[in-house]
Amino acid sequence: MSEKRSFDLEALSNKLSQILGDRLSTAQAVRDQHGQDESFYPLAAPDLVAFVHSTEEVSQIVTQCAEHKAPVIAFGAGTALEGHVNAISGGVCIDMSQMDKVVEVRPEDMDVTVQAGVKRRQLDEYLRDTGLHFPVDPGADATLGGMAATSASGTTTLRYGAMRENVLSLTAVLADGSIVKMGSRARKSSAGYDLLHLLIGSEGTLGIITELTLRLYGRPEVEASGICAFDSVQSMVDAVTLAIQCEIPLARMELMDELAIYAVNLYAKLDNEVAPTLFLEFHGTEASVADDQKRFAEISSELGGKGFRASTSPEERKKLWRARHEALYAAKALNPGKKGLITDVCVPISKLAQSIADTRKDFDEHGILAAVIGHVGDGNYHTTLWVEPGDDAALKTAKGAVERMVERAIAVGGTCTGEHGIGIGKRLFLQKEHPSAMVMMRTIKTALDPDNIMNPGKIIEC
Amino acid sequence: MSEKRSFDLEALSNKLSQILGDRLSTAQAVRDQHGQDESFYPLAAPDLVAFVHSTEEVSQIVTQCAEHKAPVIAFGAGTALEGHVNAISGGVCIDMSQMDKVVEVRPEDMDVTVQAGVKRRQLDEYLRDTGLHFPVDPGADATLGGMAATSASGTTTLRYGAMRENVLSLTAVLADGSIVKMGSRARKSSAGYDLLHLLIGSEGTLGIITELTLRLYGRPEVEASGICAFDSVQSMVDAVTLAIQCEIPLARMELMDELAIYAVNLYAKLDNEVAPTLFLEFHGTEASVADDQKRFAEISSELGGKGFRASTSPEERKKLWRARHEALYAAKALNPGKKGLITDVCVPISKLAQSIADTRKDFDEHGILAAVIGHVGDGNYHTTLWVEPGDDAALKTAKGAVERMVERAIAVGGTCTGEHGIGIGKRLFLQKEHPSAMVMMRTIKTALDPDNIMNPGKIIEC
Repeated sequence: MSEKRSFDLEALSNKLSQILGDRLSTAQAVRDQHGQDESFYPLAAPDLVAFVHSTEEVSQIVTQCAEHKAPVIAFGAGTALEGHVNAISGGVCIDMSQMDKVVEVRPEDMDVTVQAGVKRRQLDEYLRDTGLHFPVDPGADATLGGMAATSASGTTTLRYGAMRENVLSLTAVLADGSIVKMGSRARKSSAGYDLLHLLIGSEGTLGIITELTLRLYGRPEVEASGICAFDSVQSMVDAVTLAIQCEIPLARMELMDELAIYAVNLYAKLDNEVAPTLFLEFHGTEASVADDQKRFAEISSELGGKGFRASTSPEERKKLWRARHEALYAAKALNPGKKGLITDVCVPISKLAQSIADTRKDFDEHGILAAVIGHVGDGNYHTTLWVEPGDDAALKTAKGAVERMVERAIAVGGTCTGEHGIGIGKRLFLQKEHPSAMVMMRTIKTALDPDNIMNPGKIIEC
Repeated sequence: MSEKRSFDLEALSNKLSQILGDRLSTAQAVRDQHGQDESFYPLAAPDLVAFVHSTEEVSQIVTQCAEHKAPVIAFGAGTALEGHVNAISGGVCIDMSQMDKVVEVRPEDMDVTVQAGVKRRQLDEYLRDTGLHFPVDPGADATLGGMAATSASGTTTLRYGAMRENVLSLTAVLADGSIVKMGSRARKSSAGYDLLHLLIGSEGTLGIITELTLRLYGRPEVEASGICAFDSVQSMVDAVTLAIQCEIPLARMELMDELAIYAVNLYAKLDNEVAPTLFLEFHGTEASVADDQKRFAEISSELGGKGFRASTSPEERKKLWRARHEALYAAKALNPGKKGLITDVCVPISKLAQSIADTRKDFDEHGILAAVIGHVGDGNYHTTLWVEPGDDAALKTAKGAVERMVERAIAVGGTCTGEHGIGIGKRLFLQKEHPSAMVMMRTIKTALDPDNIMNPGKIIEC
């Protein structure tokens, strides 16, 4: 953990008050609220919390922080999972939640410009009447700025891509307070260095994203949901691989392992067969969705799928996916009072079944009860290890299991995180995954933020 | 233009000879061959040409160049269009063409690892029996390393994405000779800074790409080609926009304007109606392609399309697209002895029709005879202005027209280049398009290449 940075808090506080008035808070409750995300990392409250309304205000605040060499951390909805917002060196938290305007929707260009504090569900609601939607869905109701900053993705990546593929341009404030626009509304560009993608996933360590333009998609005419159990994760992966090779444009393909199904049956009184289960979603026209279902049914029955069924009726769809929707609540209910150590890895799909099997074996050997849920088309899977607060031995066991899970993923050509990011939690794993690239990452960080004020201690330990 | 750099050529040459033996050339013919791409920029030969066989050799050469502060320029197939490979400061050209091994195809993961000198058609041939294909198609038979370095795309971007979306990982040699691996074979990752996309499109100014892993796609069961004339570019764009909003997954959508059709009719003795014409390609199953065609036919007839027809028969498909395939030859034949000043811009699709109309008007006012061809789904269009070598007045007129075309594109939220890159030719335009980002680009360039040896004078004038 980093040391708390020393800077002239009073002078900085006075300066920021002049800019923000009563939108600068020093209240302990507000600071505590901003010192933690949804991970298990201990609270680390910032010294000040600034509620901003514009890019210009962010620029003014960062300029002051630069002058005082004070840390500055952007905060969206607080839904990150690796301690991204924890103010481990103190400093100023910039709360983006009041920058919540949808600036402009352009249906003819199928894009939308939003302030960074707009949340995913808010945008979905806003777009409802346009016939368009923004499909990136990480589960949590995160801000779009936060989703870009952590390179979020979720259940629809295979069909629509992650944030990386769906941000067209953004405005960011850099460590010196300068305002930089990156990318453009053109659908493609070869104009100079790709700064846009450098900022996406930089977790506030290179700049603070204040506005972004996103790709939109036509809402599908027809959506169908499906479910299919398999004898083994391997046969499920084989079916999914073949479906992808056959270019069946599946919108979602979610895996729940046996333990996840068992837990949700217990919690929600469902009677799903306790087997590795695939949850599917099809988007398209009536004809294409029917065709896609038929093709998937053929593939799955050839490869050991059992009882594939699908429906376009809203009620039936909800029923089919209920186990998936209740999965998190079921896990929580089975572990009352415990905190979840949530983690994810992503591997080449040919390694997915073995990777999950190895993880299951490791958990069993260490007496860990944790289900596996995954975005099987991407090779990305998640698990939550439940730990009683204060039980250091259990925490150590859980951390050890995560470490081995990540190391196995890296060993087979995968990555230490598919979509949660590095934050505090995976800095050492990043070095293991990218030993040769770390020097280059540090060079860039040092060049763009020489005093290390931007979310210090995250991604790279400087 | 940059000055020729001063360094100890003899000492460097001796060192490189020790590494490469007779794979280091000082022959004038070889040097001249490596001093120019397909653009009109004057030949600027490197001092030495190094034919490499491995990443390690590239590393050794760059290490020597770093020691001597000598420029180093990677050369693929020489098909770039903005003077990317011209050795305007002299130095060492690294010819990648002998690094032409397909390292490994992994059908189950739908990816392939290639050395950077593998060419697009060679890869296509190699993959023929696997049922997979790599769809990025810029027209020229470029090397895949070159395509990544220039962020190439082409006719299939709307469906499959550009290089940016299809490189999973790469190995590059940086300015200090270090070998860095970026990205991973996982389909998604949030692990640290996105160096992969920083290298893609960096045109050899940050590092030399030596190996890359690419996404592959299942070859479509059925491919159909189609053609449809329109009263105006605007009505064509309207039809295309609606088709995209309706999520018709078109694989290609190519625009030829009236002049392009006129030229090709004349050259190839065709009888296409002289009107803005859309060339389409559909990929999918028999059922989905039929459905897509039907839906497109409805849309186009509603929006003024005339005589839409399509076919899945190979002979008929060739016939339908013949005008598109002959377009470049037709333009060349109409301009014997002239050199083509080839350029491209990309605009939000809602601005495409007006942008093309403005360009046409500008050309007419300046007596320029140049057709427009475009990837209409992306808002990206190309034109070639033909100039008699030595006719400085005509060159000036042509350059002026390009300048205005680019400035209009930037003014409506577009980019100075959709897929050709910056090279020598568009450095000033890059500054106009990204005034605030240029400082950040320079900071990164200086941090990673402090002596400015990597393809100096390209993208950024240092």
